[in-house]
Amino acid sequence: MRVATLRVQSFAEVAVPRPDLSARSHRIQPFHVMTLLARARELEAGGADIVHMEIGEPDFPTAAPVREAGRQALADGRTGYQPAAGLPALREAIAGHYQRDHGVEVDPGRILITPGASGALLVALAMLADPGRNVLLPDPGYPCNRNFVEAVDATPRAVRVDAGSDYQLTPGLAAAACDERTAAMLVGSPGNPTGTLASSADLAGLAALGQRRGIGLIVDEIYHGLHYDGAPAQALAHAPDAIVVNSFSKYFGMTGWRLGWMVVPADWVPVAEKLLQNLFISASTPAQYAALACFTEASREIFEARREAFRQRRDFLLPALRDLGFHIPGNPAGAFYLYADITALGDDSADLASGLLEQAGVAVTPGLDFERTAPERHLRFAYTTDTDRLATAVSRIQRYLAAGG
Amino acid sequence: MRVATLRVQSFAEVAVPRPDLSARSHRIQPFHVMTLLARARELEAGGADIVHMEIGEPDFPTAAPVREAGRQALADGRTGYQPAAGLPALREAIAGHYQRDHGVEVDPGRILITPGASGALLVALAMLADPGRNVLLPDPGYPCNRNFVEAVDATPRAVRVDAGSDYQLTPGLAAAACDERTAAMLVGSPGNPTGTLASSADLAGLAALGQRRGIGLIVDEIYHGLHYDGAPAQALAHAPDAIVVNSFSKYFGMTGWRLGWMVVPADWVPVAEKLLQNLFISASTPAQYAALACFTEASREIFEARREAFRQRRDFLLPALRDLGFHIPGNPAGAFYLYADITALGDDSADLASGLLEQAGVAVTPGLDFERTAPERHLRFAYTTDTDRLATAVSRIQRYLAAGG
Repeated sequence: MRVATLRVQSFAEVAVPRPDLSARSHRIQPFHVMTLLARARELEAGGADIVHMEIGEPDFPTAAPVREAGRQALADGRTGYQPAAGLPALREAIAGHYQRDHGVEVDPGRILITPGASGALLVALAMLADPGRNVLLPDPGYPCNRNFVEAVDATPRAVRVDAGSDYQLTPGLAAAACDERTAAMLVGSPGNPTGTLASSADLAGLAALGQRRGIGLIVDEIYHGLHYDGAPAQALAHAPDAIVVNSFSKYFGMTGWRLGWMVVPADWVPVAEKLLQNLFISASTPAQYAALACFTEASREIFEARREAFRQRRDFLLPALRDLGFHIPGNPAGAFYLYADITALGDDSADLASGLLEQAGVAVTPGLDFERTAPERHLRFAYTTDTDRLATAVSRIQRYLAAGG
Repeated sequence: MRVATLRVQSFAEVAVPRPDLSARSHRIQPFHVMTLLARARELEAGGADIVHMEIGEPDFPTAAPVREAGRQALADGRTGYQPAAGLPALREAIAGHYQRDHGVEVDPGRILITPGASGALLVALAMLADPGRNVLLPDPGYPCNRNFVEAVDATPRAVRVDAGSDYQLTPGLAAAACDERTAAMLVGSPGNPTGTLASSADLAGLAALGQRRGIGLIVDEIYHGLHYDGAPAQALAHAPDAIVVNSFSKYFGMTGWRLGWMVVPADWVPVAEKLLQNLFISASTPAQYAALACFTEASREIFEARREAFRQRRDFLLPALRDLGFHIPGNPAGAFYLYADITALGDDSADLASGLLEQAGVAVTPGLDFERTAPERHLRFAYTTDTDRLATAVSRIQRYLAAGG
C-alpha cells in the first residue's frame, strides 16, 4: 500500500541535528531504581535468587471480587468513554467511604476520578503552578512529585525534613521556605519513602499558612488505609481547601488498572474537570466499574487482612533492621516502606545497595531517588514481599555485613 | 477517628481569596459540545428522541475477542504495573501490524505504549515544546490538540487550511507560518473534524521542512484503519523522524480502556520513556493484555466489518447532506466525520445546532470547538450511529430546514 513519493532520509542518515528537546526533557530524571531493577532481572535470568525489597507495589494481585466486577463489566460491554469527572456511582461510593471511614462529609461533586494518582497530581499542579513559580516539597520525598512540578515548568523547592518532624513538612518549615513565588505545597501522608504520617496539627497549620499567603496545598493520601498504629489524619477534616489526591493502587490493590481520584474545592471543580477532559478524555471504564466493588464488605475483609499482613511485616522488619545497625528514626507507621540511615554501616548507600544486590541477592533502593540532602546515607526497604522472604533478606544482609560488606 | 485540633475554616467561610489558578487554567477551554450533550441528555430525560451525531466515539462495544482477552487477564491476576514502555509482546504485535498493513519496518523498541493517544500527545509535546515556543496546528482541527500545547505553556499557532489542500497542513503553508520560535508541527490524518487524509507528498514535505528548520513533526494517526477510498499514507514511511501517535480507541474499538501508543526516533526513546514513567507509571495492564487480541484474524474480521458499516454510513450521509444544501468540500475519506459549511442554510452554526437539537431532535457539533477562522459557518456530523438513525436525522433536518429553520 506504499505510494511512490519523495523519500525523506532520517536524521541519522543525513546527519542533520534533530530538533532541540525541551528543557524539561533534560530536567526530568529517570528513576535510578530502574537500573537496579534491570540488573536484578539480569541476575535472576542467570539463576540467582533475589529478594525484592525495591518495589513500591503490593505483592498481592487485585482482590478477587474486584477482578470479578471488572470481568462482569467487560461481559456487559461497558467499554465506552465515561464522563471526564468519572462514573457518578463511583464518586458517590468514594464520598461514602470518606463518611464511613473518616467521619468527613464530602460532596461527591467535588470528587473527580483520575487515571491513577499520577493523573490527579498532574492536574493539581497544572491548575496551580505557572512557569517560574515554585512548589515546596519535603525532602526526602517521592521522586515523581518533583518531576510533576518540572513537567509544568515550575521549580521544585526541596525542604529538608528530618526525624524531628517525623519527616513531614511542618508549617514552620514551610513558612521559612516559601516566598512570593511559591504556588503550592505538596505533602504526602503516609509518606514515601519514610512511611510516616502528617499530624492533624501540621495539616491545619499548612492550610492556615496557605490561606495567609495565597499558596495552594496538595495532600497526597495514596497510602491512606495502610497504617499500623492508628489512622492518619484526614486532610479534608483539617485543610478544607486542600486538593487531596488518592488512588485505588495501594490499599485497594489495583496498581495496574491506573485509577485514582482527587477532591478539589467546589469552585475549582470546573477547572479540574476541563483539564481532565482535555488531558485524558476520561479514566478507564473497566477500572471504574471494577472499583465499585472495592466498597463491599467482602472486599474490605480482604483489604484489612492484607493490611494486617503488612503490619506483621513491618513489625518483623523494623526491629530486625535496627538490630543490624540501620538507624530508622521516627515512626514508620504507614505505607510499606522503611527509610534507613546507613551511617553506622558504610558511607555510600548506592555502593551498599549494589553490594547487597550482587553479593547477597537483596534488592533495595538507594536514597538517590528520594532526596537531595544526604542520598548517600539512606536506603529504602519496601516490605512488599512476605515475612519468610523478609527473614531471608535479613539473614543475607547480616552475613554480608559480617563479611565486611 | 477525628482528632481534636485547630479547625481551619474554608476559603468560602473566611472570605479570603483562593490561591491564584495558573494562567494555563484560564487558557485551556472546555469542549463546547459538552454543554450541548448535557442538554441532549436533559431532553432525553424528558422523553425526547435524539439522534446523536455529536459524539466522536464508535457506537460498537469493544469486540468480543478483545473483551474476552481482558476477562482472561483479570482471571489470571494480571493486575500489576507493567514497564513504563509497555508490555513487550504488545510492542512486538504493533510492529507486526506496521509490517503487515503498511509494509513499514519499525523496531518494536521505538514503540511505546501510552494511556490513550492523549498520553502520547502530552509526552510528545512535553518533549518538544518549551514555554514561549509555538506549535503549528491546522485550523480546523481537534480541540484537545491546541490544549495539549497550552498545557505545556507553548503557543498553538492555528494555520488556516481549506478544501484546496483537503484541509491538511501542507509544507508550503507550514513554511509560511513557522518562525524561529516554532518547536513542532502537529497534524492528523485522517483528520478530525474533516475526515480528510494527508498525502504522502505532504508528509514527506513536512518532514523535509522539519529537518531544514529543526522543527519536530508529530503525526496523529488515531483514525488510521478507518478509511474508505484507499489507505492513507503511513507517516513512518515518509517522515522517518516524526513522532507518530496512534490509539486502540477507534479502529480497534477500545475507547474506554484508554490505550494508545507512540513511535519515536530511536535516540529519543529514553526521553519518552522517562516522561511516561514519571507522568503515568505505566499504561493499564488489563487493557494491554486485552489489546494483544486485536491482532488476531477473528478480531480483524470484526474490525473490517465495522469499517464497512462506517463506509456505508458515509456513502449514505455525504450525498444526503449535500442534497440538503450543506457544502462539504474536499474528500472526507476517513474517520467518521463530515465537516459541513452551512453558509447556504444560515449564518450561525451554533444557532443551527441549537435549533436542530431543540426542534428536530438531532445533535451535531458546531464549528466553535474546531476552528478559529469561521466557526459560525461550520457543523460537524459524526456518523457514529447506524444508517437507519442517520436516515431519521436527515428527514428531521430536511423538515426543520423546510419549515424555515
